Amino acid sequence: MALTRPALKLTQEAALALVQAAAEASTAMGVPQCIAVVDEGCNLLAFLRMDGARVLSIDSARRKAETAAAMGKPSGSMHAEVEIKLAIASDGRMTNLKGGLPIIVEGQVVGGIGIGSGTGDQDREIAAAAISRVFG
Amino acid sequence: MALTRPALKLTQEAALALVQAAAEASTAMGVPQCIAVVDEGCNLLAFLRMDGARVLSIDSARRKAETAAAMGKPSGSMHAEVEIKLAIASDGRMTNLKGGLPIIVEGQVVGGIGIGSGTGDQDREIAAAAISRVFG
Amino acid sequence: MALTRPALKLTQEAALALVQAAAEASTAMGVPQCIAVVDEGCNLLAFLRMDGARVLSIDSARRKAETAAAMGKPSGSMHAEVEIKLAIASDGRMTNLKGGLPIIVEGQVVGGIGIGSGTGDQDREIAAAAISRVFG
Amino acid sequence: MALTRPALKLTQEAALALVQAAAEASTAMGVPQCIAVVDEGCNLLAFLRMDGARVLSIDSARRKAETAAAMGKPSGSMHAEVEIKLAIASDGRMTNLKGGLPIIVEGQVVGGIGIGSGTGDQDREIAAAAISRVFG
Repeated sequence: MALTRPALKLTQEAALALVQAAAEASTAMGVPQCIAVVDEGCNLLAFLRMDGARVLSIDSARRKAETAAAMGKPSGSMHAEVEIKLAIASDGRMTNLKGGLPIIVEGQVVGGIGIGSGTGDQDREIAAAAISRVFG
Repeated sequence: MALTRPALKLTQEAALALVQAAAEASTAMGVPQCIAVVDEGCNLLAFLRMDGARVLSIDSARRKAETAAAMGKPSGSMHAEVEIKLAIASDGRMTNLKGGLPIIVEGQVVGGIGIGSGTGDQDREIAAAAISRVFG
Repeated sequence: MALTRPALKLTQEAALALVQAAAEASTAMGVPQCIAVVDEGCNLLAFLRMDGARVLSIDSARRKAETAAAMGKPSGSMHAEVEIKLAIASDGRMTNLKGGLPIIVEGQVVGGIGIGSGTGDQDREIAAAAISRVFG
Repeated sequence: MALTRPALKLTQEAALALVQAAAEASTAMGVPQCIAVVDEGCNLLAFLRMDGARVLSIDSARRKAETAAAMGKPSGSMHAEVEIKLAIASDGRMTNLKGGLPIIVEGQVVGGIGIGSGTGDQDREIAAAAISRVFG
C-alpha cells in the first residue's frame, strides 16, 4: 500500500510573481483588478486589490481561483444547467463567472488564479497573461 | 399511546462498505470521486475523497447524500420550479444536483449516499453501483 | 525562481487505513468514536462515525484533525491564554481539545487525524494507535 | 455643511511593499508567516501565505489586520474582560491575538497589517518590521 504520493506545490515566489504579472497586465489594459492565487487545496496563497478595483470582487476573484483549481478547468466552463446548483451546494465557492484559470505544471493542477473587477473577458485575459508571463 | 417506534439504522460496517464499493466502482470508471454516506438524520456516517477528486466536491457530495436521505428519492428529481428555492432555504443542504441516492431497507429510508466530482450521470451511476453491491 | 516545490500527499488508501485502524482500536477500547482524516491543506480525506459515537463529535473530530495538520503538533498543546482567541479567529477550526495528531512523513506534515466521542485522553490514544498501526 | 472630507488611502504599491517587507523579515527570522494588509475599511488589500505557513492562519492574520485598522491600535491591547465578547459579537473579525498593527500616516489610520503562524510576539515583531521598512 502506498501511503503517500509525490506532488508539486506552488511556491510563494510563484504566487507573488503571478500577482505582480497580473497587476502589470491590468495596468497595461487600464482596468484595476482584484487578483487571487490559491493552491491545489483551494487555500489562499496571494492576493492584491489594485487601486480602484472593486471591494465586492475580493471574494469573487478568490472563488474564481478556487473553482479553477478544484476543476482543473477555466471557470465559466460549467453547463448552464448545473452552474447555480453547484454554486449553492458549495456555499458560493464554485462559480461559473469567467476569470479563473487553473495553474498546471507537468500535467498536475497546482493551483488557480482568479481575476475580478472587469468584464468576464477582460478578467480571463489578465489571468491568461499572468500565467503566460510566469510559466510560459 | 405508543411512545416509541422501531427503526433501522445503518451500521458503520454498511457505511464503510458503501464507501469502499463506490471507490471500487469509481476506480473501474476511471473517475476519482468524493463519496459521502449519511444516516436518516442527515448526519455524516462515512466519507472518502479519492486521490484526484475535487476539493470543492466534499460539501456537494455530502449534500447530495443528505438530500436523498431527507427526501427518500434520488437527488435531481425536484421540480425545476422549486429547486433553487429549496437549495437557498436549506442553506444549500438540499441540492438538485444528480448523484445522491436514498438507502432503503425494508421500505424504510435508512440513509443516503452522495457522489461528486464527475458528471451528474457518472455520479449517479457510482451511487447506484455502491448500493447494488452492498444491498443488492 | 523556483515555481514549484516537491511535496508528499496522503493517499486515499492511507486515509482509509487510518480510519479502519482507529475503528479497530476504538472497538478494542470499547468506546465508539468519530474518526476524521484531513490532508495538509485541512481538507477532509476520510471519515467514519462508529455505531454509538456522538453526532455532535462529527465536527469536533474533523477540527481536531485540521488543527493538528495546520500546526504540525497535537491538538491540546496551545497556551491556555490564546486557545479561545484562536478558536474564534478561525471560526472554530482551530481547537485545543485533545484528540488530534499530525501525520508526519519524512519530516513533512502530510495531514492530521482527529478523534472525538471519548475523553480527551481516550481520543488521543486512539489517534496515536491509528498512526502507529499504519505508519509505525 | 461639509459634504465630504479628505482622506488618505494606502496604495497597492504600499500594500505589496508591506507584504514583501514582512516576508523578508519572516525569512530572516526563520518563521514562515501568513501576511495580510487591509485598508481603513477593513477590506483586504494584499496577502501572502509563505511556504510552510499555517493554512488555518489565513483568516486569523487577516482578522488581526482588520482589528488593528478598526481600532487604530495594536491587536492584543483589548481589556481581557471584553476580548471574547468583542470577538463573538463581531463574528470573529475582532481578535485580541497579537500580531496586528495599525498603519498610521499623518495621524490618520489608513489600514492595518496582520501576521500569523508564529508566536504572538514573533507575529508582532514582523508586523512592526514591515511598517518600519516601508513607512519608517
